[in-house]
Amino acid sequence: MSRFWSDLIQDLSPYVPGEQPKSAKLIKLNTNENPYGPSPLAMSVLREDIGPDLRRYPDPYSISLRTAVAARYGLSPEYAFAGNGSDEVLGLAFATFFKTRTGFEGPLQYPDVSYSFYPVWARFFEVEVAPVPLSPNLELDLTPYREGTGGIIFPNPNAPTAMALGRGEIESLLRDTPDRVTIVDEAYVEFGAESVASLVSQYDNLLVVQTLSKSHGLAGLRVGFAFGHPDLIEGLDRAKSSFNSYPVDRIAERIACAAIGDEEYFEARRDQVVATREWTTERLVTLGFKVLPSSANFVFATHPRVPAKELFEGLRSRDVLVRYFDKPRIDEYLRITIGTDDEMRGFVSALESLLGSLGPSDNG
Amino acid sequence: MSRFWSDLIQDLSPYVPGEQPKSAKLIKLNTNENPYGPSPLAMSVLREDIGPDLRRYPDPYSISLRTAVAARYGLSPEYAFAGNGSDEVLGLAFATFFKTRTGFEGPLQYPDVSYSFYPVWARFFEVEVAPVPLSPNLELDLTPYREGTGGIIFPNPNAPTAMALGRGEIESLLRDTPDRVTIVDEAYVEFGAESVASLVSQYDNLLVVQTLSKSHGLAGLRVGFAFGHPDLIEGLDRAKSSFNSYPVDRIAERIACAAIGDEEYFEARRDQVVATREWTTERLVTLGFKVLPSSANFVFATHPRVPAKELFEGLRSRDVLVRYFDKPRIDEYLRITIGTDDEMRGFVSALESLLGSLGPSDNG
Repeated sequence: MSRFWSDLIQDLSPYVPGEQPKSAKLIKLNTNENPYGPSPLAMSVLREDIGPDLRRYPDPYSISLRTAVAARYGLSPEYAFAGNGSDEVLGLAFATFFKTRTGFEGPLQYPDVSYSFYPVWARFFEVEVAPVPLSPNLELDLTPYREGTGGIIFPNPNAPTAMALGRGEIESLLRDTPDRVTIVDEAYVEFGAESVASLVSQYDNLLVVQTLSKSHGLAGLRVGFAFGHPDLIEGLDRAKSSFNSYPVDRIAERIACAAIGDEEYFEARRDQVVATREWTTERLVTLGFKVLPSSANFVFATHPRVPAKELFEGLRSRDVLVRYFDKPRIDEYLRITIGTDDEMRGFVSALESLLGSLGPSDNG
Repeated sequence: MSRFWSDLIQDLSPYVPGEQPKSAKLIKLNTNENPYGPSPLAMSVLREDIGPDLRRYPDPYSISLRTAVAARYGLSPEYAFAGNGSDEVLGLAFATFFKTRTGFEGPLQYPDVSYSFYPVWARFFEVEVAPVPLSPNLELDLTPYREGTGGIIFPNPNAPTAMALGRGEIESLLRDTPDRVTIVDEAYVEFGAESVASLVSQYDNLLVVQTLSKSHGLAGLRVGFAFGHPDLIEGLDRAKSSFNSYPVDRIAERIACAAIGDEEYFEARRDQVVATREWTTERLVTLGFKVLPSSANFVFATHPRVPAKELFEGLRSRDVLVRYFDKPRIDEYLRITIGTDDEMRGFVSALESLLGSLGPSDNG
């Protein structure tokens, strides 16, 4: 607290990222990172002589990158936007579409159990909100969103529940709310959900946000995107050019383009993560867990008898880090990132030892 | 224009960066980039095996980088902040210190002729402004700033005038305005002005912003800093963590640390730019220009008889690009970035040919 902070900054409750401990001994399954590094083809651009170029500003519009990501969905580059991670893209989108819009002043709707950054951006950009409860079984039901008047945002698949909506359900919402902007946050879409990115050429009220962090093993590089009608993209560009003209640096743009180009590597690693997720889910079910159906690179699981907090702490003391949210409705769940097969075997062993130590009645 | 834009976005006048033409034939002296690339030592970090690390999120607080830049001024890391270019740092600072602060609601003061991004951030973050005219000879006189009640921001040296204030003048302002935050934007400080960064340990109302873009030849990498009392830095961290948790990617952090470590390379290139600036200034004076005394890597010059716009266009047609501002008070000046010796010889030749073509009476 400082007397020099603006009233806005005094009132904020900043986002808290997942813990990043330094210990190399830990099995780290708490931040939904990809267990595999980026494509070697992507990294090979670093062997080129990048130095002399670095003295120049990057392209403020990252046109090569916009062209490469747009092409994945058969879109031309004017349907795409690129930023310093999907968090920056989402932040700019809050300013562009969710701040007061005369005639459409309703509060922003988003799931009450979801990415915890949404209410943070809302406060930073002074956007009124009306979180919508997930159904009792933690599913995202779009019915209540049809009754609002402001913007809409939800992840697909949702986080931390990992469950996805079908393309048809989202398209039906877009048709029913043509005067409101809907943002679909597809951070985890590549692991089993269906992207609606190609719908942006049909629905001018849809913005789709993606990231290379999880799907392409590039969380350390900070590259994210949005897809939308060129009018929406122009709005994002106005926000970007009123905050930070050059959000994507020259090296990040080159690596990102090369990573997107290596579809084969991407698919092989993604399929591996999905296979490991299925194996992990089976093992968790065998150990007595209820596991929500996952379309993401993590699973959300609860044990009917052992409190999640106890499991979180027990795993931690066995050098396995998962994510526990001390929040209403989900404080009996653990969010477990899918790591390598070795890491997941280590996780399951630690869990077996932990459940065993708690006595036979708790063990499934 | 789109019906989906918020009122804020409709009303913005985004910043317009200097033109970045693709033609390799051009002598490009319009965006104040360093003519020399970054330190080879800095680039050598790219030969390390960075790939596997990239799947992990970066350190949200860039502690290694904060430690390295703070050490340059004998400060501990809690006095430093790092972001995605000094533009992002300045944007966050506007939200943190210049939005409404109960009890200190006066408008933000900044020079009327200065970095044109200041009024853009003010609109984006809805900050009231009161630009203060430079003196008739385009000098920055701090007297009127003592009479305000809100925040203060100015570059030192100022841009595009290139003229610098002394450390004593700034310190005296800080003493006289202890309840207001003053931001000194030191983007160009390394080329001849005196940094006030070390004063942050004495004045809790001072924030100093710097960048590696110009001084270290790294405009393409997007790394900027702020120095301030730990309470000010904590405020910036609250803003950062409410907008984009991880602004500095893993590769940028490593290159930046290595670049800061290579003081010898930095000093040699800086001295070269200063020597070339002095040579260029002499030549311009010989050609009849009035050149403002420069402490930056650019000069601001006017010709008593030839309109600046005509010079700008004549140079452009001779493949030399400088910056011309079609704005009151400075529309008779050209801002000329200092390039390599070869580039400046090319610039002077083009200028001689241009002035010659305009007839003897205009040629000095």
